[in-house]
Amino acid sequence: MKLIIGFLAFFLGSAFLVRAQNEKPSNPNVIIFFTDDQGYQDVGVFGSPLIKTPNLDKMAADGIKFTSFYSASSVCSPSRAALLTGSYPLRVSVPVVLWPNSDSGLPTQELTIADMLKTKGYATACIGKWHLGDKPEFLPTAQGFDSYLGIPYSNDMSVNPNFKVAEDAVFREGMTLDSLRYAKPKKYFVPLLRDDAVVEYPVDQTTLTKRYTKEAISFIKKNKEEPFFLYVAQTMPHIPLYASPDFKGKSARGLYGDVIEEIDWSMGTILKTLESLGIDDNTLVIFTSDNGPWNLKDGQGGSALPLRGFKFQTYEGGMRVPMIAQWKGKIKAGSFTDKVASTIDLLPTIAYLTEAKVSEKPMDGKNIWPLLSGSKKAKSPHRKDGFYYYSGKTLEAIRRGDWKLRIRNGDVELYNLKNDISESINIASTNPKIVKKLQKMMDDFDADLKLNTH
Amino acid sequence: MKLIIGFLAFFLGSAFLVRAQNEKPSNPNVIIFFTDDQGYQDVGVFGSPLIKTPNLDKMAADGIKFTSFYSASSVCSPSRAALLTGSYPLRVSVPVVLWPNSDSGLPTQELTIADMLKTKGYATACIGKWHLGDKPEFLPTAQGFDSYLGIPYSNDMSVNPNFKVAEDAVFREGMTLDSLRYAKPKKYFVPLLRDDAVVEYPVDQTTLTKRYTKEAISFIKKNKEEPFFLYVAQTMPHIPLYASPDFKGKSARGLYGDVIEEIDWSMGTILKTLESLGIDDNTLVIFTSDNGPWNLKDGQGGSALPLRGFKFQTYEGGMRVPMIAQWKGKIKAGSFTDKVASTIDLLPTIAYLTEAKVSEKPMDGKNIWPLLSGSKKAKSPHRKDGFYYYSGKTLEAIRRGDWKLRIRNGDVELYNLKNDISESINIASTNPKIVKKLQKMMDDFDADLKLNTH
Repeated sequence: MKLIIGFLAFFLGSAFLVRAQNEKPSNPNVIIFFTDDQGYQDVGVFGSPLIKTPNLDKMAADGIKFTSFYSASSVCSPSRAALLTGSYPLRVSVPVVLWPNSDSGLPTQELTIADMLKTKGYATACIGKWHLGDKPEFLPTAQGFDSYLGIPYSNDMSVNPNFKVAEDAVFREGMTLDSLRYAKPKKYFVPLLRDDAVVEYPVDQTTLTKRYTKEAISFIKKNKEEPFFLYVAQTMPHIPLYASPDFKGKSARGLYGDVIEEIDWSMGTILKTLESLGIDDNTLVIFTSDNGPWNLKDGQGGSALPLRGFKFQTYEGGMRVPMIAQWKGKIKAGSFTDKVASTIDLLPTIAYLTEAKVSEKPMDGKNIWPLLSGSKKAKSPHRKDGFYYYSGKTLEAIRRGDWKLRIRNGDVELYNLKNDISESINIASTNPKIVKKLQKMMDDFDADLKLNTH
Repeated sequence: MKLIIGFLAFFLGSAFLVRAQNEKPSNPNVIIFFTDDQGYQDVGVFGSPLIKTPNLDKMAADGIKFTSFYSASSVCSPSRAALLTGSYPLRVSVPVVLWPNSDSGLPTQELTIADMLKTKGYATACIGKWHLGDKPEFLPTAQGFDSYLGIPYSNDMSVNPNFKVAEDAVFREGMTLDSLRYAKPKKYFVPLLRDDAVVEYPVDQTTLTKRYTKEAISFIKKNKEEPFFLYVAQTMPHIPLYASPDFKGKSARGLYGDVIEEIDWSMGTILKTLESLGIDDNTLVIFTSDNGPWNLKDGQGGSALPLRGFKFQTYEGGMRVPMIAQWKGKIKAGSFTDKVASTIDLLPTIAYLTEAKVSEKPMDGKNIWPLLSGSKKAKSPHRKDGFYYYSGKTLEAIRRGDWKLRIRNGDVELYNLKNDISESINIASTNPKIVKKLQKMMDDFDADLKLNTH
């Protein structure tokens, strides 16, 4: 009995001490769980009417939900470049989607979150979709990640015949090393890479969500004693959609719903692992999506309702994404913010938390720890400066506070997102002063950014 | 130590025994928390982008969320008649909204949930908006409720000069007993009744949500040892909107948001009371709204997005409402259903749980305990029979499975709600067989109901 009381006192005492010391947490583990083309509505707590996401819903109940969180692009590669570097995609020279065997990629002189955390001794892993260049010099293992397992780009692409191929690579569907090297690349036949070499071609996409999850768990368990950064970029729900047999046909929303429910399982499995290892109080977990859903007529795409628009567009539906963050004891359970924040804010936030040094080049993101931690004084870092919506190299829109100005091919649209989240009533003609002011902000920002790309 | 182990064994043993015995719970307390004109989107977990509802969000995380739950009318009185009787409003003779000093009301021969639970010895209380007749014979205390505190109809109405007035009634705003009796009734000057007598005129509406909450807590505490039924029908967020000083100006969604955040506080306070009294495991709590939001140009109304339409309409936005149910240990935490259910199903469900006898007259609702309790075989009780959307005495629409047929003034609309939750693509012309089949179901049901009104 005395022993028990002694132990209790010790544990309670230590917990208290840790908390008191950690007003500003230091060296937390960081997990970014990034899905592909999942729409704003495609999570239970974001209002999905049909898809069940009990794990993401619980994550929101245990953490914080952002309802005005933006990807920095409405398409894959630029969105990922921005997430990993803390700047708008054009600033870091990835304004458009990359294709297999492209000459370009995320320039290696750019500081990624992984690069930055390596300077603090973090173990780092990238799992899933990369899509920031498939030449060896652009792959994750050349960009700050200790290891990589995943498809190097979108799952509707094909193979790069120049990939290094592992000796024990598995070939499927009648493919061979020769067909990989010399046959015309087949659409949807994509390779799975470990580090820089193909280990399966074409990969069995029904296994991907599970395989990524298993890899994530294994990495977390291996590194539970030291700080780690885990970037899980799910291949799904980008089309072509694939669910494992455990999930296929189970949802009320067709294959798309099955896929999201498997992703929800994956997120839940990771969160439960943190909990069972007792490191959930030292791990910041971010869930979000790379851009809006694809507008597919056959119902295979997701939904951004009540937002207007889809992937490829600078309407809200193209870039406003679901976002949930959890960190036991540091982020208040069941909290919520409607303040504007973005994927570009993750790097500076993580830099703040870890006291890691950021690049000296201009950076667009800002530390959102005050928002995450629920500081009463927290304001949107983009309230005054505006959040900018690029489409490729073209700046198409700005959000400042509740106002959104969008200018495309000479068409001027002004919306008040507070009253009109669906961008249905263009009030540009009755608010010329606001249009003028926001347009000047856009022009100034764009000119400055184009002078200061890295 | 032995003592502690003994106690532990006792508690664990009892808990186990109770659970094993209670496969079908009996005589639970029942709380129905019913808001007025709160839109489908106006709860965090239903996707509100601006309004914070941490208590309702937690209630969903601890219970079940319904995304296809329907009020049986798009306006107040019929919706309430249906909720309390388990039948479509027309069947129980309340097809339209009642006005102060009306000759009609909910016929007293109709069995309300309160009447039904009185036969099982329940303590019963009605708090808030009644709106089922304001003559003494129609008031809550004549319809199965032991007590009543509230405004007898909508808060934008006026006073009934024939009300009984309590001796110690409080008069405000220069009003007197004489002005109540003889002056022309003033719009928005509404009385607060306790049981059947006016106790404040006009009531200070900024105090209502708090006063109702206090009354609810007091009733719960008083009756914690015996089974009770508590019906809290909030006056808010019906316009004119009022929040208490604690909430006014605090939300990011104007006064409407302030009001919803106070309602959320009210629900949370009730739930916390149940928990602190240790009766949350014996209390079924239902949260829902009486109909969709009012379409007001000044932004004072709520939002049903992504649903189409508003209060007064048989589009989804008029009748599909947020619904959350909680019952610790009986309803699985974090569960979810997209199956069609309705307020008319509450009476038969409560009858099932309490083994209370229902009326022998035809009733439209069905037991949804299988849905609430997450039985794997649970199907929507309205999947085969259809759910019917009445507007006054006119049947305007049917939902069967994912299909919705709406016929109004000869215009035929067919939607597939699974793919098109916003009712934006009318596919009637390309699906004539489905239209014909659903139209026949509507005709048959309507004819039968009109022959079998009570």
